[in-house]
Amino acid sequence: MQHKLTPVADCAVTFRDPFWAPRRQVNRKVTLAREYELLRQTGRLDAFNPRVKGVHQFWDSDTAKWIEAASDALGAAPDPVLQRRVDTVVRRYVRSQQADGYLNSYYQRVAPDKRWTNLRDMHELYCAGHLMEAAVARYAAGGRDDLLQALCRYADHIGTVFGTGKGQKRGYPGHPELELALVRLYRATGQKRYLDLAAYFVNERGRYPYYYDIEAQARGEKPSAEKRGQAYQQLQAHLPLREQATAEGHAVRACYLYAGMADVAAETGDAGLKRTCRRIWKNIVTRRMYVTGGIGSSFAGERFTVDYDLPDEGAYAETCASIALVFFARRMLDLELDGAYGDVMETALYNGVAAGVSLDGTRFFYANRLAVYPALMERRISGQHFTSFRQSWFGCACCPPNIARLYASLGAYVASTAADRIALHLYAAGEIEAPVGDGVVRLALKTDYPWDGEVAIAVTPDRPRRFTLALRLPGWCARPVVRINGRRQPLARIARAGYAYLEREWRAGDRVDLSLPMAVERVEAHPSARQAAGQVALRRGPVVYCLEACDNGPDLADLALPRRAPLVARRSPILGGCVVIKGRATRRSRDGWKDSLYRTARAPRVPAAFQAVPYCLWNNRAEGEMRVWLREC
Amino acid sequence: MQHKLTPVADCAVTFRDPFWAPRRQVNRKVTLAREYELLRQTGRLDAFNPRVKGVHQFWDSDTAKWIEAASDALGAAPDPVLQRRVDTVVRRYVRSQQADGYLNSYYQRVAPDKRWTNLRDMHELYCAGHLMEAAVARYAAGGRDDLLQALCRYADHIGTVFGTGKGQKRGYPGHPELELALVRLYRATGQKRYLDLAAYFVNERGRYPYYYDIEAQARGEKPSAEKRGQAYQQLQAHLPLREQATAEGHAVRACYLYAGMADVAAETGDAGLKRTCRRIWKNIVTRRMYVTGGIGSSFAGERFTVDYDLPDEGAYAETCASIALVFFARRMLDLELDGAYGDVMETALYNGVAAGVSLDGTRFFYANRLAVYPALMERRISGQHFTSFRQSWFGCACCPPNIARLYASLGAYVASTAADRIALHLYAAGEIEAPVGDGVVRLALKTDYPWDGEVAIAVTPDRPRRFTLALRLPGWCARPVVRINGRRQPLARIARAGYAYLEREWRAGDRVDLSLPMAVERVEAHPSARQAAGQVALRRGPVVYCLEACDNGPDLADLALPRRAPLVARRSPILGGCVVIKGRATRRSRDGWKDSLYRTARAPRVPAAFQAVPYCLWNNRAEGEMRVWLREC
Repeated sequence: MQHKLTPVADCAVTFRDPFWAPRRQVNRKVTLAREYELLRQTGRLDAFNPRVKGVHQFWDSDTAKWIEAASDALGAAPDPVLQRRVDTVVRRYVRSQQADGYLNSYYQRVAPDKRWTNLRDMHELYCAGHLMEAAVARYAAGGRDDLLQALCRYADHIGTVFGTGKGQKRGYPGHPELELALVRLYRATGQKRYLDLAAYFVNERGRYPYYYDIEAQARGEKPSAEKRGQAYQQLQAHLPLREQATAEGHAVRACYLYAGMADVAAETGDAGLKRTCRRIWKNIVTRRMYVTGGIGSSFAGERFTVDYDLPDEGAYAETCASIALVFFARRMLDLELDGAYGDVMETALYNGVAAGVSLDGTRFFYANRLAVYPALMERRISGQHFTSFRQSWFGCACCPPNIARLYASLGAYVASTAADRIALHLYAAGEIEAPVGDGVVRLALKTDYPWDGEVAIAVTPDRPRRFTLALRLPGWCARPVVRINGRRQPLARIARAGYAYLEREWRAGDRVDLSLPMAVERVEAHPSARQAAGQVALRRGPVVYCLEACDNGPDLADLALPRRAPLVARRSPILGGCVVIKGRATRRSRDGWKDSLYRTARAPRVPAAFQAVPYCLWNNRAEGEMRVWLREC
Repeated sequence: MQHKLTPVADCAVTFRDPFWAPRRQVNRKVTLAREYELLRQTGRLDAFNPRVKGVHQFWDSDTAKWIEAASDALGAAPDPVLQRRVDTVVRRYVRSQQADGYLNSYYQRVAPDKRWTNLRDMHELYCAGHLMEAAVARYAAGGRDDLLQALCRYADHIGTVFGTGKGQKRGYPGHPELELALVRLYRATGQKRYLDLAAYFVNERGRYPYYYDIEAQARGEKPSAEKRGQAYQQLQAHLPLREQATAEGHAVRACYLYAGMADVAAETGDAGLKRTCRRIWKNIVTRRMYVTGGIGSSFAGERFTVDYDLPDEGAYAETCASIALVFFARRMLDLELDGAYGDVMETALYNGVAAGVSLDGTRFFYANRLAVYPALMERRISGQHFTSFRQSWFGCACCPPNIARLYASLGAYVASTAADRIALHLYAAGEIEAPVGDGVVRLALKTDYPWDGEVAIAVTPDRPRRFTLALRLPGWCARPVVRINGRRQPLARIARAGYAYLEREWRAGDRVDLSLPMAVERVEAHPSARQAAGQVALRRGPVVYCLEACDNGPDLADLALPRRAPLVARRSPILGGCVVIKGRATRRSRDGWKDSLYRTARAPRVPAAFQAVPYCLWNNRAEGEMRVWLREC
């Protein structure tokens, strides 16, 4: 393919669908305002002010994500109050920048003499990356280049400090993020030096001798042997990236890094990096991903563990990690248009990500477990991230503003364009204005997706125009049908790698009908995924379901679903309107157990009608048990 | 019942059975010698020597448990080398005792001015308790009273420091153990002040204001609110013992405490304490105990969690905790002869405890999980206690010498006697010499127990003598049969609470035949025990089985056992000779999965013959997956 695909801008997409439109509205009206208030109360928005106490190494990133989210929201719709808030916060950053371009509230306030002495732990380059992303978003939303200019200066400063040149430090971020941010900065400014710097960070990472050893020695520490092996794997820095074959360590860091690597590969055409992207992607999605698109199964280290290790109660599956997977998937889609990437992106968005925030936009999950027993949470597991209910804030507040910026920029995940193509990845009612060649094509989608799979697309080019409309054929749909102006298209011929390629001269009034029949499916996991053995997850379209105690009573694990029991999908008014699944299972009778914990008499089973709701909507009505995987009998 | 039951002494029991006899032999010949060497190498045996570095607060307890074990072993059979070693170590302790009776290597060496300032954390009274147990065992084994006299002086010193009198500290052990040790000391010496002191510790515990707050304040610390609630529950000190209804906190501390409470109740007849014992016992065995007799399901805090929370992979089930449960059960048996206590004691001994040591006596499990995946252990869970193979030693070395002393004193768990009764709790081939009234009764057992349930008992009183022989009727046996001299006894009339009471004038040549038919049973867990839902554990007699990868290949969780599949028990030469269980299950085919992690096509199932081995014997042949609970289909 000669032309590179580029995401459409969020502001070119209008959502009128039942799923994202209300969430984006809540995000703009409620979440952004509450996060502003919490960032303000905790001191983050005024971190350079000497009166603010407790400045933390990751504060800049929290604020930057909020600036990015607010800027994206302002790009979609003006809001004077929000605009004033963003301008004020940005002004503080711009004003606080040092003469050499350095810009970090923690080091400037707390340890001005310790700059660049601990990349491994201190999030210094990570914060720089988030500020760059915020700067690009602010510029893209309304042309305000104050922060962009500041961050270019900062990037230039970073470019003088790090690199392979004489006197430069051969360091790289302990928490990746800067890599993809530099590519965004390159795309926004056209300055190739930012791409080169991103490529440097990607290529330098994990080389021996380890930079983290060198800087530790410079700090007067003796890096232990343990640190080198296990601990650098935690940071994806145990091996040069091109030699890495599996997704390792902290899941958010990992997928931010892989996303940055995919960006560099896309811009440089580096075949080795592309291979590495594909290899690690494959390891994630075929061995280390929850059915919800959650990744990073271990609370300890917030990390990947080993192939097929996907505990449900013990799942960590950080909200930020699913977001990072969406970033990685989105970039792989533009690198090589393959529906498999779109399938994972869609799964993560409708499940692992959407579960991260309450319907009212005020509460968040940090960890997204696939089975929850509230009684246990009180006693067994400590840590505020591992609760059985969403919380309004976290000391480590990465997830809330990360959701906010993803939701505010969601349009950019819907479609990509190139000179001769529009690729449609997600289906949501609304309009898309896509630049194609020298003109513009409007797509108007009518659909009740994700609750229904009938999608009508009115195609309106600015003038009759030949181009390809590539429609993603979701992997969950066994028999999709595509019609143009009522005529069924031969998918066997025009579909490849999960997309249907509709090439023709399009005219105003053309209509495409995409029919994606949605059945309730029982999904099973690979025989090596032991924690799901004998169980199925219910899925309909891209939406994964769960059972909650408020619908089904406690002891959900004892429910067993007969193999051939019919499962009925029904539109329900609950939870803001959604499709629920109803069926009949069985559970063991409690009679006759008295005070026995174990017994050999077989307990009789009694019928138990059940209702499953979308996983992303759980804990919006009550606290209680929840379970995704259901045992079959 | 007018006469109190008392355990027979270990030296009055000879084991000639296929299970315990070889283990006791290995314990004496191998384990005790290796533990001596490891205790010596780590400095523990010479802790008072100023040249030994790193004295730790719990070292005395490790050494004391070894002295106790070695003394018990010497009571059963002389061994000049072992005797010399014990004498040397004991001499060091006796010689190091301070003028006021104080005796603790850590405080005397490391912090002589900090005595009795931190009962909560520092194991000071815990070490005293273990030294007392060692002293009693040494005295009982051969009349050597050097250590006993020293520990009486130490107990007297403790009695001056602690109590409700003027100027006394109202403290109690952070790690219980001293309570039961003081009762042992009372029984050995007849000095009621030791019983009174034990009763004081039991009764003072958990009163408000909390002593641990008071001593923390005295140290200049501010006890946090968090400490008071959750942290004192960890030590069973959140409430007065009589107000506690559930087994909470650190499982070893808990059951040592409950055992001490049962001892005090037995000696004082305190009805309130007895009720508390029964209430907490019931909570453990009906809500918080693994099918193997393991307790304390959480790695964090080595503790009980909530009712029915019994994860298999995540099980902690410390070896010491099962041993502590055996202590508690044994004392409840003498408090009120009920087979339910004997059932739990037998289950813990043959499963949760016996799994703690390798067949060759050189390696130990600290945590006893019920499902193990070695690949995971390398990455997911840190901590030396949580390995997929037994280890030769631990930094916190509580379990190895605890097994050694239990095995060396196992005879005391076999039977109890009173003036008019012998109660037989465990069945193992061999001889028992039981004091009854003013004489002695010899019981000679012939049986292949636990591999077979036919038990022939030759009863030989010193002269014709009327007494009751009470035989435990194991709960696992649905239809036991008892014959005296070939004549079947009417169990409906003579059995109550799990024991058959055979009262007659016994004469030399009398023979009792106890027939306990052993079937392979499928045990299911309560519907609220979610981690075992849909699964069964295989049990035969008192022995719980497991599957190992070396017999059955990996991915054991994917095996499914048809509900009516026949299960065959067969004597096998493997693992030192044991009964294995064979059957046919099914597993999903790996074909057609290619690189999918999730799919909706139902995977075909293929037959899979399997072999289960006793749980206590796993990891004696190879490292690999292991699993107790098997899914039924």
